[in-house]
This record gives sequence, structure tokens and C-alpha cells, in this order.
Amino acid sequence: MRNEADENTMTDIAAVYDVLVVGCGPGGFTAATQAAQAGLRTACVDQRASLGGTYLVDGAVPSKTLLDESYFYRLLQQQELVEQRGVRLPYPRLDMQAAQSALKRNIERLSKVYKCELSKNNVTVYKGTAEFTGPYCVEISQRGLGSFIVEARYIVVATGSAVIQCPGVAIDEDKIVSSDKALSLNYIPPRFSIIGGGTIGLEIACIFNNFGSRVTIIESQSEICQNMDDELACATKTLLQSQGIVFLLNTRVQSAGTNAAGQLDVTLLNKLSKNTCVHHCDMLMVSIGRRPLLEGLNISKIGLDERDFVDNVDEQTQSLLKFPHIKPIGDVTLGPMLALKAEQQATRAIQSILSTDSISTSNCGFSPNVLYCQPQIGWVGYTEQQLISAHTPYQTGKVLFSQNVRYNTLLSQKESDLIPAFIKVLVDSRNMKILGVHMINDDANELLSQASMAVSLGLNAYDICKVPFPHPSLSESFKQATQLAVASGISPSVNVRE
Amino acid sequence: MRNEADENTMTDIAAVYDVLVVGCGPGGFTAATQAAQAGLRTACVDQRASLGGTYLVDGAVPSKTLLDESYFYRLLQQQELVEQRGVRLPYPRLDMQAAQSALKRNIERLSKVYKCELSKNNVTVYKGTAEFTGPYCVEISQRGLGSFIVEARYIVVATGSAVIQCPGVAIDEDKIVSSDKALSLNYIPPRFSIIGGGTIGLEIACIFNNFGSRVTIIESQSEICQNMDDELACATKTLLQSQGIVFLLNTRVQSAGTNAAGQLDVTLLNKLSKNTCVHHCDMLMVSIGRRPLLEGLNISKIGLDERDFVDNVDEQTQSLLKFPHIKPIGDVTLGPMLALKAEQQATRAIQSILSTDSISTSNCGFSPNVLYCQPQIGWVGYTEQQLISAHTPYQTGKVLFSQNVRYNTLLSQKESDLIPAFIKVLVDSRNMKILGVHMINDDANELLSQASMAVSLGLNAYDICKVPFPHPSLSESFKQATQLAVASGISPSVNVRE
Repeated sequence: MRNEADENTMTDIAAVYDVLVVGCGPGGFTAATQAAQAGLRTACVDQRASLGGTYLVDGAVPSKTLLDESYFYRLLQQQELVEQRGVRLPYPRLDMQAAQSALKRNIERLSKVYKCELSKNNVTVYKGTAEFTGPYCVEISQRGLGSFIVEARYIVVATGSAVIQCPGVAIDEDKIVSSDKALSLNYIPPRFSIIGGGTIGLEIACIFNNFGSRVTIIESQSEICQNMDDELACATKTLLQSQGIVFLLNTRVQSAGTNAAGQLDVTLLNKLSKNTCVHHCDMLMVSIGRRPLLEGLNISKIGLDERDFVDNVDEQTQSLLKFPHIKPIGDVTLGPMLALKAEQQATRAIQSILSTDSISTSNCGFSPNVLYCQPQIGWVGYTEQQLISAHTPYQTGKVLFSQNVRYNTLLSQKESDLIPAFIKVLVDSRNMKILGVHMINDDANELLSQASMAVSLGLNAYDICKVPFPHPSLSESFKQATQLAVASGISPSVNVRE
Repeated sequence: MRNEADENTMTDIAAVYDVLVVGCGPGGFTAATQAAQAGLRTACVDQRASLGGTYLVDGAVPSKTLLDESYFYRLLQQQELVEQRGVRLPYPRLDMQAAQSALKRNIERLSKVYKCELSKNNVTVYKGTAEFTGPYCVEISQRGLGSFIVEARYIVVATGSAVIQCPGVAIDEDKIVSSDKALSLNYIPPRFSIIGGGTIGLEIACIFNNFGSRVTIIESQSEICQNMDDELACATKTLLQSQGIVFLLNTRVQSAGTNAAGQLDVTLLNKLSKNTCVHHCDMLMVSIGRRPLLEGLNISKIGLDERDFVDNVDEQTQSLLKFPHIKPIGDVTLGPMLALKAEQQATRAIQSILSTDSISTSNCGFSPNVLYCQPQIGWVGYTEQQLISAHTPYQTGKVLFSQNVRYNTLLSQKESDLIPAFIKVLVDSRNMKILGVHMINDDANELLSQASMAVSLGLNAYDICKVPFPHPSLSESFKQATQLAVASGISPSVNVRE
């Protein structure tokens, strides 16, 4: 299969592997571990000080940790709520230095889990950059240690993604920052504005809002959360507004810079009225999206360009059409930039190498989605709008958590009384299969697992109605909504139990 | 079917129903609602001021609410833990009066949900006591309003249960109390001792321990939690001990009384050594179990005794063999005294009346179980010990939550580092079906719902491995443990990922 002539001469090769994984985020980690566990000689190269990629080091994990901290801080400030529950509590004070130190310890701990697991499975880990010198050869450069070439039968490219720049807004990581920087700030800017109302923008908005910033989201579209079910998206916006976040919709940022007073002037264009205005803030975060990160890998050396990683990929085997032994996974590929997708692709890539049709391939189509605000927003499967467009006959059951017994025993759920936490189950009228589940509640990410089981395994509503759920639990509302969906008529009747 | 001669004369009858439900806890409520929704003329009688039964008024709900409050109070006292997360917090003070007021509001709110739902479904609700005057006739006595007789084609008996008395220990609801009283106390006794290490005893032990009592559990058996998987029971005991609860095992209470100093003297017998000693405390709670509550119903009037409700019941239709139109459900029947069971039986009872084989019948055999301490203890399906006794070949996968990403982003999970939170999945080696799931973690009651879906729907391990779980979520550990179970050899090898 391989052509020796393409390669460096044997004397240049420092090591030979079955599989070399470039990048050690969740996707790369999964690929390396699974390859090694299957007996393949495996190495992994990553240029960061800590393993785990954007996900672990400056993305999802810091974001979720700070969200948890910030909602705890927010809760403690709601003296009335706390005192009602029998705790008399003096006012708390925030110490962002301590919060950041704790966060760093947390990341280190998780990164160490990656390291230990790789080591346990005999994966060689190189800290350094990687670039192609031939289709089967990669030069690894380690800072201060020089460089060398390794050869591999298969190369998994899991190099991740980078922030997309916003025209007219130069990120200086001082006052105009990326999400990476925002998540490592050890002070709270009085006015924090965010370009982009996607998941990353919204979660970081919640963090700073809870910690006391006045937060503004600037979004060029007419609504946030475009991929959500309309009812859920509407509830999400109302929720975040009720917590103090301001939304400027249909608004484009034309430029941003520091004025004489040292504050930021951000020129905004309203897309509808065509008016411009100057918005003032102390920090501006750009989060209009991320793009595949292939720089530095020198793919042109082997005759590839970025398009080959988008258009020319065999999704069955996660292989480049031009070089089937090169397997891109995760954020460098098309589709949502989620750790879950990266892990699934990693499994598929390794299984294609092993030529196995193993059990772990998750190709159930729907990724469950969570926005980790409080209460959380979670959804999996089809939205009502998708079902209506597709002319799919469906039935709906919706339950408010305010009637759930467990919900009423939990302090942390109380604030959301303003925005009724709910769960909505969409059922196919033809076969009673569960097509979609949409919810707003504090524990959505765990309840969504049940919903994801139902949707991805093709369970039907009758199955769910048979399951004994723990009592009291929030999950009972999933069952109850499913029962209501069964009892309800055909779409678009919405059966609200209130 | 009915014999008019057995009944009162028509002139005595104040109202006639298809279904009369006696008792409005979760079972009675479910029966009444479902009967009415099916178009049956339905009435419900309950003697308490608030609907909801022991479950809502002085059992599970107050217990879970106070547990949540008490763990919040406990968390705030762990200054180091809180400050690590960036919150400088002066020491909190407990106000049990406020806590109890909040609890009462909570119960009222939930009770009102019951009331509204019954009213919405046109169920007539009588506040009063009920006693049989004939097989189809019940006399309802309303305080201050006199009594009258109603007739019904079917009578659902959902009268619940009462505390079992402990010989030698007279409950005075002052210093020697039942769980009902303990859950409504508006002060914290310095030394709080509990006879009985079952779920009720352990949960109330946690509440008072968190609020600052020195808590002792006196248990006549050699271990607590006899029905748990051994590994889980062991972890539970270690957990509660690490939080400060003292266990006196193999110990029987012979007598208890107030001494001259006004404190309680409790005489204990060690079953192994046969030694006796006197144990001092400020409050003693008796929770050695509950018994079916049939007093006042005057069942002897129609030729029944308590045995008829235990031994002579058709479980398919929830009917008394002697009078198939009388249907006992919930705590008055054999088996675990859980709201879940009562609700399932209620559904079965109403379905037998309607002669339908409806979708909602949950007869999946295994009830999920949760001990709502923190972290929670949850289990469903078979224990390892049961599988070994039955010579069932099984495989085990166990994962520590300390390696779970979501776990590491949550403040509330941190205290449990002492006792490693884990999840253990038991899989049938012959067909890979999930036989049992046992776990210790803060969100066990919601994770258990997934496990209960798997066990009760007969899903196999391969199914679970296919499901995309939200990322990051605690539920991912369920999938991971299942993957390890698949990868592991046949029992009794235990594959611990650490």
C-alpha cells in the first residue's frame, strides 16, 4: 500500500508506529487510547503544556467550572432565597484569583487523567508541534529538544479549531479578547460585551453576569440559538434576560477600539434600521465561531489543502479520499464542534483501521445538546419546526417542573420560577417513536441522557411509560410528558399540563 | 355482580360513584385521577388537612427538602471548600423556624397541585374518615359536618401505613419521637439517636447530622442497608461515618426513659456480647419500620381482616379475592412501601376496572432505589450477591466519578472525594443484558433513571454503548462502565478503572 519512494530514507526515522495521533483533545485522546488498547503501536503528539485540547484547557471544562462557581455565588447573593431555607448568611465576597487557581488545579487534575490513561495504555506522548514531511512521515519539533521524524501506517489528524476573527475587531487579548482569554481572567470587568450569541458566547455571558458584570450580547441574526426548537429558544432568551443579560439582535459590529478615556468604543450597525451607534464597554469578547485548525501541519507538502479535510472525506472510515491512511476527526472536520462528535469519529477511525464493526460505533445521528446556563437548556432529536417542515405527523406532551415533586424539594431550582422549567416530548404519531425531547431545567444534561437513549435507540413512547423511574426524581417528568404525548391528539396540538 | 341485599337502603345513600378511593397519597391520587380521566364517576376521601399522604406531608417530601437544605448548610460551613472556589463567605447561622416555614409552604404548594389536578378531573374530594358499612358502601364522617354514606361499584383502599412501635420504647412525640415528628422539629437536639438503620432512619440521620446534632444509629442487624449490593452498602456506611454519624450495630434497645437530669437514658443490649449499657441522648427517634394502616376502616364489618389484604390479593387486578371490587394499593399491600409501587398498583387497579391492557402498566419487576444522602446512593436490578447465588454468569464494569469531567466541574461533588463516588454495571455474560446498576454520586436519582430504563426494558450493553451521551455529563460514566463491563471477562472479575 505504501510507497517507500514517497518517504524519507530509513535513517531519518526516529520511530515507527502503527498509529500517530496529532492533537490530544477528546478526539485524539480517544483515538490514541483505543488504538493502543487494540494492540497497535501508538503515539500522540500535542503542542500544549497540558493535554486535553481546547475542550479541557480553555474551552468547555473551564467554562462549565466557572459557570458552576458563578451560579453558586449568585445563589448566595440571593439572601431572601437562602434565608427562606433556614440559613442566615452574611453577604459573600468574590475572589477571582482563588477561583482561577481552583480552576487551574481542576484542569491539571483532568489533564493528568489523560496522561495517566495514555501511559497506562503504552501510548508514547510527544510534547511538540507536528508537520508532514511525507504522507507517512511527520516531523515533531519539541521546544529546546530539536526535531525528529516519526513514521506511521495511519495518521489521525485531531488538531482542533481556532477562533474566527471578526472583521474590524482585532483581538488583542487585553480588552478585546477571545473566549480562551475570557475564561482565564482573574478580575471582573464592569461592562462585558460579547459578539456572537452561540453556545460559547451565552455560557461566558452567564459567568460574567453572575459574577457582577453588566453583560451585553451582540448578535447579527434576529434570534439567538437558531438551531433550537422555537419554544425552547424563546424560553432561553427570556431566562437570560431575566437574569440581567441584554441582547442586541440584528446588530453587526463594524469596528472596535479604545478611546481616550481608556474604554472601548464599539461601532454597531442595526441591520434593520441601518442606523449605527457607539456602544461602550470595558471588555469585548469575540465569539462568532471557530474554524478548523490545520496551520503548521504543512499539509501542502503532501499535496493537500484545507478543502480536502472538508469535502473529500469518507465518513464511514473517517479517511481522506486522497490518502485513506490519513484520518481527520473532531473540529477539523465538518459539522458541530463538539467533543462528543470527535470521540465518535475517533472510534470510527480506529475501527476502520482494525476493520472491525465494533459495538462502540455511535452513529445514532443525533447529538444531545446542552447550554449549561441555570437552569440548563437541553435538547436532542427533531424540533417541532423540523417535523412540521417534513410533514411528519407527531404528538406533543409537555410538563412543567413546578409540578414535579423532586423539583420542589431542591433549593437550587427555585430561582427559575420566573421562567417555567419544562420538558417537551415529541412522538411520531405513526409508530409512537420518540422523535425529540426539549427541556429547560437544572439537571438537563443528565435528563437528556435518558432522552438521548430513547431517541437514539428508537424507543417508543410505550417503552418509556413502562419504566419505573426513581421517586421523587426530575426524570419522572420525562415519563409524564411522554404519557401526555401518547394521550394527546395528532400535531400541532400541544398538551400543557398546568 | 353486586347484591343489593348487602347494601344500605337507597334512601341512606348520599352519592353514588363508579370508584371511591380511600386515602389520597400518591397511590390514591393516581387511582382517582386515572379513573376520572377514563370517564368514571370518581370520589376520593382523605382525613388529613392536606392531601398527599405520608409521602407528601410527613414522609419523603419533607425528608428530601430538609436533606437538601441541610446539605446546603453543611456546604456553606466548609469554608475551605467554598473559598477555594472563589467565594469568601462569613460563617452561616441556622434558623430552623425559617426552614420549617419554608418546608410547610412547599408541602402546601404540592398538596395544592394534588387538589387542583383532582378538581380539574372532576374527582369529588371528601375530607373525613371512611368506614365500611357494606361491601359497596362507605360512611364518610367529616369533622363538624356530620356523616353520610356513599356507594361505589369499586373501592380502592389506599390508606397507607403507620410507624411500627418498638417494644419498651413509648413514643411520646416529645423526646421519643416518630419520623413524622422529627421532620417537623423547629430546633436541633444536641444528641439525636435513631433506632433503625433503614432508609428513613438514615436520611433523617443525615439531616440532623448536617444541622449539627451528634447522631447515633442503633441497628439490631450486623449491617445497615441489608438489601443493597455489599460493595455499595459498605461505601454507604463509610460515607456516613466520614460525615460524623456513629453506628451501633448488633444492638437492640431494651428500654428508654427520661432521667432526673431531663435527658434520655436508653438501655442497649449488644446481641453478640450480651452486654447491656445505658446510652444518653436528647432525642430518640423510632424508625424500625412501618405497617399497613387499616384501623378505622372497619373492615370486620364486611367480614374481612388484615390478612385478607396481605395473603388474599390478586396481583393482576389488585383485587381482594373475597371482594374483587375492593382494590388495595400502596403501603397497605405487601412489598416495599414506596410511592412508585403505590402508583403502579393504582394504574393496575384502574386498568383492571376498565378491562384495558394499557400502556402505562409498569410491571418491570425492579424498582429503582435511592438513599438521598449526599452523595446519593442508588441501585436498580440485581446485586452481585444475588447473581452469584443464582449462578448467573455476569461481567462487571466499574468507573470512579473522579475521572468524570462533569464531576470535576461541580462544586457540590467535591466533598465526596473521601468516599470515591462510583458506578458499577452488571451485565449478563450470556446475552449482554444489563442486570443491575449500583452507584454512589450526587445525582444518583437521575442517573438511576437511565439505569432503570436499561434494566426494565431489557436493553443490552451494546445498546448503551451506542447512545451519544451529553458531554460533559455524569451519565457518561454509565456508558463507560457499561463499555468496561463488555470488555471485561466473566465474573467475578471486577474491572476498576483507576
